[in-house]
Amino acid sequence: MTVADPDEPDGAPDGASGLDAPFLRACRGESVPYTPVWFMRQAGRSLPEYLAVRGDGSMLDACTRPELVVELTLQPVRRYGVDAAILFSDIVLPLRAVGSGVDIVPGVGPVIDHPVRSLADVDRLRDLEPADVAYVSESVEMLTRELGPVPLIGFAGAPFTLASYLVEGGPSRDHAKAKAMMRGSPRLWHTLMARLAANSASYLRVQAEAGAKALQLFDSWAGALDPADYQEFALPHSRTVLRQLDDLGVPRIHFGVNTGELLSSMASAGADVMGVDWRVPLDVAVERLGGQLPVQGNLDPTAVFAPIEVLEAKAADVLRRGKVAPGHVFNLGHGVLPSSDPGKLAHLVDHVHRVSRSDG
Amino acid sequence: MTVADPDEPDGAPDGASGLDAPFLRACRGESVPYTPVWFMRQAGRSLPEYLAVRGDGSMLDACTRPELVVELTLQPVRRYGVDAAILFSDIVLPLRAVGSGVDIVPGVGPVIDHPVRSLADVDRLRDLEPADVAYVSESVEMLTRELGPVPLIGFAGAPFTLASYLVEGGPSRDHAKAKAMMRGSPRLWHTLMARLAANSASYLRVQAEAGAKALQLFDSWAGALDPADYQEFALPHSRTVLRQLDDLGVPRIHFGVNTGELLSSMASAGADVMGVDWRVPLDVAVERLGGQLPVQGNLDPTAVFAPIEVLEAKAADVLRRGKVAPGHVFNLGHGVLPSSDPGKLAHLVDHVHRVSRSDG
Repeated sequence: MTVADPDEPDGAPDGASGLDAPFLRACRGESVPYTPVWFMRQAGRSLPEYLAVRGDGSMLDACTRPELVVELTLQPVRRYGVDAAILFSDIVLPLRAVGSGVDIVPGVGPVIDHPVRSLADVDRLRDLEPADVAYVSESVEMLTRELGPVPLIGFAGAPFTLASYLVEGGPSRDHAKAKAMMRGSPRLWHTLMARLAANSASYLRVQAEAGAKALQLFDSWAGALDPADYQEFALPHSRTVLRQLDDLGVPRIHFGVNTGELLSSMASAGADVMGVDWRVPLDVAVERLGGQLPVQGNLDPTAVFAPIEVLEAKAADVLRRGKVAPGHVFNLGHGVLPSSDPGKLAHLVDHVHRVSRSDG
Repeated sequence: MTVADPDEPDGAPDGASGLDAPFLRACRGESVPYTPVWFMRQAGRSLPEYLAVRGDGSMLDACTRPELVVELTLQPVRRYGVDAAILFSDIVLPLRAVGSGVDIVPGVGPVIDHPVRSLADVDRLRDLEPADVAYVSESVEMLTRELGPVPLIGFAGAPFTLASYLVEGGPSRDHAKAKAMMRGSPRLWHTLMARLAANSASYLRVQAEAGAKALQLFDSWAGALDPADYQEFALPHSRTVLRQLDDLGVPRIHFGVNTGELLSSMASAGADVMGVDWRVPLDVAVERLGGQLPVQGNLDPTAVFAPIEVLEAKAADVLRRGKVAPGHVFNLGHGVLPSSDPGKLAHLVDHVHRVSRSDG
């Protein structure tokens, strides 16, 4: 159990700041007693206690209820003993907070009422003010108290991924409309992206100022871009987001799937830690990053459906390859799949801790 | 118009064998007068003449009607002046030909009546005999006569991609069931894969013996595998397919999406030409392949939605990067999207021919 005892106000002795937490040390490339672990989408449908508490309401409405957010964020920390919590939320939440008509449709994903097609549509996306997401500040403050020494990760969507939802009107396999806009109407595209970058930067700042100890910028769909398009149409805006957070002093993690060819470009946006999907062996990723950055990842999320000995061997391989990095945060190469067995994930956390501790 | 005049029995002077066609020369790494072009999924819903002829019937039934297959295969050759035709068909056709209950559901993809779960299910997949696909031989023979000097490409699905459909029961985002079988029941998995390899090899041989001048093995979903899993669970069976075709003397093209990290492994299966998706710059792919193999690709399929000058610039960049390869067949990095404008694709073919001719 890594969650602080609620009867002991500031948690463990190092809990007041928590800056010595293995997760944060790994993000800074410092020595660690064992390799820290957390899982993308660790809070969610894979947990029976999530299904018991969450109810039938809208996902985005749930994200605005601090007591519920705190409970859902803590569940995987209690269950798995992971080394970091991540705020229960969604990357489209700050879009809704500034008046964009967006909802999350079960089995589909984010759906946009009025897809962005024109400058007038972009102009309706106003700047995000802290008051727009007061419930997020409240959730983060409550969580910071509850978690004690366990760091909380705040997160946001990167401009390209958010723009794809807004332009396509929902999830897309080929991102054809978003790519058509960026290549055919570059001024409109860059105006939209600049607006989204400001929104994401403000939203990440709110989370850090309320107590989040690390921030992850998800560019989930960046891997749909060829490297030249990424550099011209996405990277400058991700850079705007990350550079605006320079003064906060919290590690910035940057991640997307299918981004093997984009790793060094994405890192150049200002990432302190690069997340890597399971397609790129971690040592190859480290080499592609010039050996300079801590990495996060990258076990195939379907590995939890394998027999225990296969799961353990695959995790050990990730740990072995991760050793060449200046720091390694163990994670899956993408989010936890809803049908994952929580027992397997708990075992995986123990295994990573045990193997990496004995190696150290 | 590159289709042979039907009144002139053997087409152009070099049409009797067609072995000097630029497409085949590029596949063999020989000098070419211009860079040859064809498009994956060039026959299909992007063409109004396809929609006019195809009717409402089942896709797989259409593939069994030689006159219709010939017409649908010729349409993009007439329309675009591409340098190769590809048989109008689908990778699951030879599964149905040996009695697997599979249909293609519009908007979904291949759907399997009884997903493979056991050895008994595998045993129901009997060996493919040429008589099972007599309509394919007939289509290929008719096409070889009609096409004259334009080479016809035959194709099949690679074992992993076919196995994923069979085990999942249809298209899958995460291939979780297929991966669970391969890691948890490796003997069952390898038995299934060996059966599928035999099926694909037989099916490709039928097409080559009927007159196909090149063969493409599509491992569409191989990019979902991490490199270690690919090498253990997929590669040996793709190798079985390609090596069984050694004696035919026709170029073997091998392709999958999201395969940036797998290119050299896939090539080692016995490919003569490696297809590359748009995520990997072609010169990077060539380097990853050790500079030894001709490559095929790799313009982002959504580039046809860009203004003409952007489309031309992106195509020119692909041509420039392709020059470092021993041979280059221009193609998209994945299939033609159904909403593509045929006029743009025709322009693209002309542009690639013109730019590469003046460069030579």
